[in-house]
Amino acid sequence: MPPKVSTAATRSALLAAAREEFAAYGIAGARVDRIAERAGVNKERIYGHFGNKEKLFDTVITEALDDLTAQIALPGRDPADYVARLADYYHDHPELVRLLMWEALNYRGQELLPGQEARVERCARKAASMADEPTPGTSRTLFLLTGLALFPAMMPQLARIMLGESADGTEAHEVMRDHAAAFVSAATGDPLASPGSRRASPS
Amino acid sequence: MPPKVSTAATRSALLAAAREEFAAYGIAGARVDRIAERAGVNKERIYGHFGNKEKLFDTVITEALDDLTAQIALPGRDPADYVARLADYYHDHPELVRLLMWEALNYRGQELLPGQEARVERCARKAASMADEPTPGTSRTLFLLTGLALFPAMMPQLARIMLGESADGTEAHEVMRDHAAAFVSAATGDPLASPGSRRASPS
Repeated sequence: MPPKVSTAATRSALLAAAREEFAAYGIAGARVDRIAERAGVNKERIYGHFGNKEKLFDTVITEALDDLTAQIALPGRDPADYVARLADYYHDHPELVRLLMWEALNYRGQELLPGQEARVERCARKAASMADEPTPGTSRTLFLLTGLALFPAMMPQLARIMLGESADGTEAHEVMRDHAAAFVSAATGDPLASPGSRRASPS
Repeated sequence: MPPKVSTAATRSALLAAAREEFAAYGIAGARVDRIAERAGVNKERIYGHFGNKEKLFDTVITEALDDLTAQIALPGRDPADYVARLADYYHDHPELVRLLMWEALNYRGQELLPGQEARVERCARKAASMADEPTPGTSRTLFLLTGLALFPAMMPQLARIMLGESADGTEAHEVMRDHAAAFVSAATGDPLASPGSRRASPS
């Protein structure tokens, strides 16, 4: 008998449970029966809906990245502001940070990534927003901006070692975020910052 | 009967096998019997020497970081050059990159880190090399430099998505590394670059 179609609520409960499980244990370490138990649904329905554990991970990370895209506007001509907004988002969504780390650890270099086509398109849109005529260098800068926003959330233990006890908590996050944004402002000269930008021009 | 003292060669074989195992599977996923088998030693000798799996991981990551410290000179007054050298090192040592990711995923925010005291001291020396009177801002900049060097090696799948097929391989690494170094030069103005620096002053 084929599995019944889940209601939207069941699907949503399953994905929330899966996100928590994958964030905690990764792809290899996640247990489908724990996900089913936490969501209060039959394990078979997970397989019926998502096929297997890897495909469930794909759905989880794709949804998490869709949410980021919906919340974070394109970089446009204010890369420092973009880094600050993105750093806030990652700070507030530690599960997404961990999902990206598990994805990286699982990545072997050639296979197609979850939602790859959509992600490539989104990054192209981001780069296009940054310059009238984006070059490969624009994409490289976008990659660096992503790193500056994501790294502190990704490596809390290095923050602790380099910045001391003061690396923990919201205030420490804000100080680090503003430092990164100022660094980006200095690097890019903020030459095209919009007049409404909350950051002062360096000159 | 207490375990025999290993020869230096046995210890070295054990640590090489452990580094490979931890890099591949992380702390929770690593299997002590696989390490013993790969090193060709009795499993009991691992426990005898290192206590438990977690302590073996601590020894592995501490040795890997000691090697980095031995190879990479302090940042001094040329942060762009430091980022380039550090990026090269991480590119050439993917196992260390993975060990740092496993450490981060395992970190719960309060416990002492492997070799913490020595690592804190080393970072303080790095910051001290960067300015006559290092401030907390100096350490924050050092943290950003580390992120710029480490992020591309840590997130190869994001490099693929943002930079395309061309993100793979040594040449792609060198292009990205030079881009990061130029970004740092622009951000810091390279005002204190030593005369012998291989990078031209921006003016």
